Amino acid sequence: MTSESKTVGQYTEKELIERIASIIGKPKRRDILIGIGDDTAVVKGSGDSKLLYTSDMLVEEIHFDRSLISPRTLGRRAMAVNLSDLAAMGAEPQYALVSLALQSSYPMAELEELYAGMVEMGNRFKVTIIGGNLSSTGSQMVIDLFLVGCTSGRIFTRSGAKVGDDIYVTGTLGGAHAGWLALEAYGNRAEKTYAELVKMHQEPIPRIKVSRLLADTDIVTSMTDISDGLSTDLTHICSASHVGANILWSQLPIHDLVHDFENMTGADTRLVVLDGGEDYELLFTARPGSAKALAEIARRARVPITAIGRIVPRNSGIRLVEGEKSSPIEAKGWSHFGAGNR
Amino acid sequence: MTSESKTVGQYTEKELIERIASIIGKPKRRDILIGIGDDTAVVKGSGDSKLLYTSDMLVEEIHFDRSLISPRTLGRRAMAVNLSDLAAMGAEPQYALVSLALQSSYPMAELEELYAGMVEMGNRFKVTIIGGNLSSTGSQMVIDLFLVGCTSGRIFTRSGAKVGDDIYVTGTLGGAHAGWLALEAYGNRAEKTYAELVKMHQEPIPRIKVSRLLADTDIVTSMTDISDGLSTDLTHICSASHVGANILWSQLPIHDLVHDFENMTGADTRLVVLDGGEDYELLFTARPGSAKALAEIARRARVPITAIGRIVPRNSGIRLVEGEKSSPIEAKGWSHFGAGNR
Repeated sequence: MTSESKTVGQYTEKELIERIASIIGKPKRRDILIGIGDDTAVVKGSGDSKLLYTSDMLVEEIHFDRSLISPRTLGRRAMAVNLSDLAAMGAEPQYALVSLALQSSYPMAELEELYAGMVEMGNRFKVTIIGGNLSSTGSQMVIDLFLVGCTSGRIFTRSGAKVGDDIYVTGTLGGAHAGWLALEAYGNRAEKTYAELVKMHQEPIPRIKVSRLLADTDIVTSMTDISDGLSTDLTHICSASHVGANILWSQLPIHDLVHDFENMTGADTRLVVLDGGEDYELLFTARPGSAKALAEIARRARVPITAIGRIVPRNSGIRLVEGEKSSPIEAKGWSHFGAGNR
Repeated sequence: MTSESKTVGQYTEKELIERIASIIGKPKRRDILIGIGDDTAVVKGSGDSKLLYTSDMLVEEIHFDRSLISPRTLGRRAMAVNLSDLAAMGAEPQYALVSLALQSSYPMAELEELYAGMVEMGNRFKVTIIGGNLSSTGSQMVIDLFLVGCTSGRIFTRSGAKVGDDIYVTGTLGGAHAGWLALEAYGNRAEKTYAELVKMHQEPIPRIKVSRLLADTDIVTSMTDISDGLSTDLTHICSASHVGANILWSQLPIHDLVHDFENMTGADTRLVVLDGGEDYELLFTARPGSAKALAEIARRARVPITAIGRIVPRNSGIRLVEGEKSSPIEAKGWSHFGAGNR
């Protein structure tokens, strides 16, 4: 079948991005350091400085359910997930533009709360909303944020991992997805029983501080944030770096409540942790022998940093090691279109 | 009634923007030269340079009808209307990010054409697409573009018009709205009978060249682009500059085909020209005595520049002068929400 008769739902997100990149062609401007395909775009500023641009869209019913999240929390979340992309590159956030499509029946009080939430999360990381636009829509609400960041130091990309590098993750894993499953299953009642998990889903904390500390060192060889799930985001790094990876199941910093959640609901912790996504933690590779320096950075940023595996040659593939056994890890995390999970 | 029980549809766009600006508060960062409320945001770059950021969202069924516009033309249009915002500020366009929400049933071939159209219009003005994101949606398609521009020279704002300044407009007026009315009334058949008008609506040409030439002079005192309609966009300038305006009906550069369109369809040329919008021409004020210099710029840019009136004191209001008569001009152009037309 040619593209003539196919729909976008028949392509993986990676295939769609590759197709789009080929239409755009190789950048002609020399000032474009990183174009389509990483967490943010990067262009040359004056001197050593670099400017970073990213956008992330939240669509009602796809990314959020207005009956399950308050407008203020939604505002905080929209800002946080965009900030996470800047954290993944090691940049300092600066400005945001907010594009909103709203039904004209949308309550004014909710609009005010939504902005208050974005401002709140923005202020926490010194980001100012400087523009945007409002549009009406006949259907689902859309929130699209554009963020601008800068750095005069190192930037992290997905493509620098080398065989022998250690693989690290910040914070804990699985909490956000368990929270989402709880909301799906129990609706607003989940906020009582699974309050902490729900909060981890709805209000991720972008790892700006630890990222900026890491950018001051030469430890990190590649980085991304865990938005689509460990399996998918690790695949992004391995694919961009042309390497494989071994992940040690026993080392994964699974949130305690995720185990409790499994006990209570029967949810599969393995799927939650590997494929769940939306933890917005940083996943990165580091030169061998960086453990001590990373422990110090973890202490200063007050965020755990855990070694979870090692980069191996590409032909060894991406594998999950559990005791004596090992099994392939496939990118089964979040994908926007139907074909994403194959 | 307090905002507690009101919907966004009960506010004008201006009121919504003012409310949002008050939630965001005064920018704390000194590097923000222009925040919310003009055609683009402007921040300080290094040295004399300034960086400009703007975004504009097109929502299916609100801004376009997929049965009446080809995906390639839609791509060109999406890029052009964003470029027009940079033209209105006098900036040089540099980069674009594209956020798309699509149903998974959207044909891949149309996605390719949509990008090809954006790339085509971008190349014409040396803009490269460097990023963005794709999302699925259960309903209407959304295209949100974020543009980055720069300048080391003058920037134009809406707020510098002075009493006695002349008011100018580039190109012609009314063609785009007449084209839209033709499409509304006759669907695809309009493309035959009213081909030129339809093209003016679907494929506006951003006035980057004339804007950059004007930025090299000290002639211009305020500027915006005509996106919402002459009446609304002139009101934006007058309101930001605390002045009034007299517009001479006999001087307006109404496109010839608009008169023909009136003869054939009975459409009210006055409404089309004053309130229609989407011409994406530049509307600006200039120091008295600039006519000769402007004629030279018009010649170099190959775009007509026409004097259409004069800035007067605020208490004289904004008026349309027709021979001996004059009548108030009210902002009756495009507004996204219901209350816009009051």
